[in-house]
Amino acid sequence: MNRSAYWVSSLLLALATTTGAQSADPASIRAEVRRYRIANDVEIVRELRDLLALPNVASDSANIHSNARHLVGMLERRGIRARLLDAPGSPPAVYGELATPGATRTVVFYAHYDGQPVTPDEWTTPPWRPVLRDRALSDGGREIPFPTVAGTVQGESRIYARSASDDKSPIVAMLRAIDALRAARVPLSVNLKFFLEGEEEAGSPHLREMLRRHADLLRGDLWLFGDGPVHQSRRQQVVFGVRGVVGAELTIYGPRRALHSGHYGNWAPNPAAMLASLLASMRASDGRITIAGFYDDVVPITDVERAAVRAAPPVDDALRRELLLGSTEGGAESVGERVMLPALNVRGLRAGAVGAAAANAVPADARASLDFRLVANQRVDRVRELVESHLRAQGYHVVGTEPSAEQRLQHARIVRVEWDEGGYPATRTAMTLPASRAVLHAVEEAVGGPIIAVPTLGGSLPTYLFSEVLRTPLIVLPIVNHDNSQHAADENLRLQNLFDGIEVYAGVLARLGRVWK
Amino acid sequence: MNRSAYWVSSLLLALATTTGAQSADPASIRAEVRRYRIANDVEIVRELRDLLALPNVASDSANIHSNARHLVGMLERRGIRARLLDAPGSPPAVYGELATPGATRTVVFYAHYDGQPVTPDEWTTPPWRPVLRDRALSDGGREIPFPTVAGTVQGESRIYARSASDDKSPIVAMLRAIDALRAARVPLSVNLKFFLEGEEEAGSPHLREMLRRHADLLRGDLWLFGDGPVHQSRRQQVVFGVRGVVGAELTIYGPRRALHSGHYGNWAPNPAAMLASLLASMRASDGRITIAGFYDDVVPITDVERAAVRAAPPVDDALRRELLLGSTEGGAESVGERVMLPALNVRGLRAGAVGAAAANAVPADARASLDFRLVANQRVDRVRELVESHLRAQGYHVVGTEPSAEQRLQHARIVRVEWDEGGYPATRTAMTLPASRAVLHAVEEAVGGPIIAVPTLGGSLPTYLFSEVLRTPLIVLPIVNHDNSQHAADENLRLQNLFDGIEVYAGVLARLGRVWK
Repeated sequence: MNRSAYWVSSLLLALATTTGAQSADPASIRAEVRRYRIANDVEIVRELRDLLALPNVASDSANIHSNARHLVGMLERRGIRARLLDAPGSPPAVYGELATPGATRTVVFYAHYDGQPVTPDEWTTPPWRPVLRDRALSDGGREIPFPTVAGTVQGESRIYARSASDDKSPIVAMLRAIDALRAARVPLSVNLKFFLEGEEEAGSPHLREMLRRHADLLRGDLWLFGDGPVHQSRRQQVVFGVRGVVGAELTIYGPRRALHSGHYGNWAPNPAAMLASLLASMRASDGRITIAGFYDDVVPITDVERAAVRAAPPVDDALRRELLLGSTEGGAESVGERVMLPALNVRGLRAGAVGAAAANAVPADARASLDFRLVANQRVDRVRELVESHLRAQGYHVVGTEPSAEQRLQHARIVRVEWDEGGYPATRTAMTLPASRAVLHAVEEAVGGPIIAVPTLGGSLPTYLFSEVLRTPLIVLPIVNHDNSQHAADENLRLQNLFDGIEVYAGVLARLGRVWK
Repeated sequence: MNRSAYWVSSLLLALATTTGAQSADPASIRAEVRRYRIANDVEIVRELRDLLALPNVASDSANIHSNARHLVGMLERRGIRARLLDAPGSPPAVYGELATPGATRTVVFYAHYDGQPVTPDEWTTPPWRPVLRDRALSDGGREIPFPTVAGTVQGESRIYARSASDDKSPIVAMLRAIDALRAARVPLSVNLKFFLEGEEEAGSPHLREMLRRHADLLRGDLWLFGDGPVHQSRRQQVVFGVRGVVGAELTIYGPRRALHSGHYGNWAPNPAAMLASLLASMRASDGRITIAGFYDDVVPITDVERAAVRAAPPVDDALRRELLLGSTEGGAESVGERVMLPALNVRGLRAGAVGAAAANAVPADARASLDFRLVANQRVDRVRELVESHLRAQGYHVVGTEPSAEQRLQHARIVRVEWDEGGYPATRTAMTLPASRAVLHAVEEAVGGPIIAVPTLGGSLPTYLFSEVLRTPLIVLPIVNHDNSQHAADENLRLQNLFDGIEVYAGVLARLGRVWK
């Protein structure tokens, strides 16, 4: 489509949406959207599948650009004015704009199209070859063909691919919500913008500059984040905050080369054993972080927030059974309560070899990869200081790069600490703001029943930048299933979540502007 | 060569060795052997290189058989009666026999032709493509062509390949020692048998049966082991004992699948953190094993042994510099003293991922690979009991196979322990036996100077079986360099060690029978 043709079609579509059944009630909207979805389920799944087939690790520049171009096409096909936003050294962000005549509020929809790195041999099927299974792999799910007859897609079937849940499906859900409203001739109640990020899983190192450069374009009354999972009970939730995150790689140095464990074991320091002791010094078995001062900046949650956490349906027992956990770190505390606290996660260990490849040798080094989850009021730079002070208190000389031979000879213990670029703090939007109340109202209407309000999600999003740069309230409205293996092998999306997500997003687009006082 | 031709040549060669300069003194023998070596150095290195080009992991049956057949050929070319010995399920052992007319003592020479498993991408050049370097890689050694002009091979050059040191070069040294004595017309002073094992690095699971089946054939007055390195000072040593060894793989179970560390971290137990704490509970930072009862069976070394250890030249400072160690686990204790104690070595750690592949996830499991080095009087079964008791005392339910879903739900903490097959105890031969004194004497003569007597090598060999099944004294006469990266990537042999080894073995073959009272 050439540029002038695009403008015309965009205008016609915008007009079309304003001539529909403006006064439709939430229940009718839900019924209309569902009818649309059932009639188009094959096409909806195909659109998601095509998007998931594009490899999308943020560092893989060529493929990231293919994703971005593909998304621009998806937006333009809906008459949404779309373009790529640039910042130096950054993967492009995809921007889109859809004006609603008569609307006074503007919502910016956020999702990210990049995905976590993969370890392909851990996947049952390749991460970028989307596969449909009749149920979850962990429940014995078997590969099935993608349906070709409209109305036959089963909600319990799952699509397996990197980013199936995190975070490509919310994009498809939002676009299909627009399609469904148009089919039902229900107008949008807000102006809509899209901001689709391409480096979220890489820690968003260029996001600040991206937002700063395009602040005018990205102006709005509310940022609505399509990321993260719904509640473990599969009920819809609205999330007002996220934890911050900062990752680090620790390397402990042993002998310059691996040594025969018989001839040198018990004399040459074993870096794997040193690493184990060091990690044991940082974290108690109940998950409490034993780094001096770590909790000093943590503010207690408010009574409103605590009440919201306690009002959520109990899921712990079901989760424990599903995950085969004989115990949890918090003892009697629920997962909802636990994520209100900071966490130290050991995301990986590497030293020598295990299993058939294990040799009787003292390894030359040992590595641990960590991530810290932070809560409101904790600062990344302060956390870094506290961690490095702790390492020093354990007798380690801390370096940031490969230590020289001289350094290694000079210090009894050396640890190299490499902080992930792009760590960031937590954020929380007050649950009492007009925008907050309007979203809760509109989502409740869209679902047609009670929903869950979550003061803080356990996961992290670079939302602090939006608050910092754009000073706009920000609320997360997730749609994907919690048991999606996001960030791990065999990531998947339960299709019913995509279908429900279309209804939720459609309801919000149709009603938010009307209930926002 | 057909079978009858082989017999004739074997007989002629045996006769030839008895007609030479029987009364040659040690210094002349040394000079003759050196002359032979210089004239044949290119051929000697070529013979080793050909042997090293054969992949030799014990579990790789086809290649192990190629090695065995190749060795039979090497023995037969010297007129040594050679054949393969079998035991059910075992790689073959290579047996050889060379009678010396008039000799009253029989020495059985032991070496193993299998090698440790490899992690190929850790090697600078592929493990089974032997490469010559002008010096050690760690000293900036560069690849050089294999010399083609006799007398030009440099002793400081090194051949890089799996088993270059551990343990193929002693085989070549012993055969070339025979060749050199023959060239010098110096007769052997003992009958010689060969027993070349094919599964030592796999823990010798079939060795007991192998020795039992062929006990008559393997009868002798002394087993001489060509394995392990010379002293770190590069001086010749004679070793009277070895540490025992037993390995284990520990697996700690977390959630059934990796979980997003934001949504579940701090609630779902982190198996990597649990593993770190568990390892920290088993071993202090000074290497002391903190498993209750672990030292109960350890007998103190004798005064003679302690004196021998203290008489060895100090090597610790040089080793520390070479290995870039800012400290050692024993504090002021020397490496020689440290290997008189049991050790717990962490040979590997694996959980989740590190570096660029690290995902913000709670890993599903965490593994550690351990080896325990045992000293005289410790029993493998007792060590296993103590370790498992310790795990239970840390609150773990111990299983030997993959736990069921029910087991995982039932127990707060589960550890799977898989003991390596073929762990074995330590052995020590008394330094005061006639055979012990004769070997010390002959080696001293061969070297023409003081040597080092070592009561116990730090490494392990399945020597207890020889003591148990054959009831024959056993002494280790190693030749390879200590800085050989055996059991690790870039294993290598310093060629001067091969050359010196030929002289040592030749001296022992020529003189042992004469000094043995």
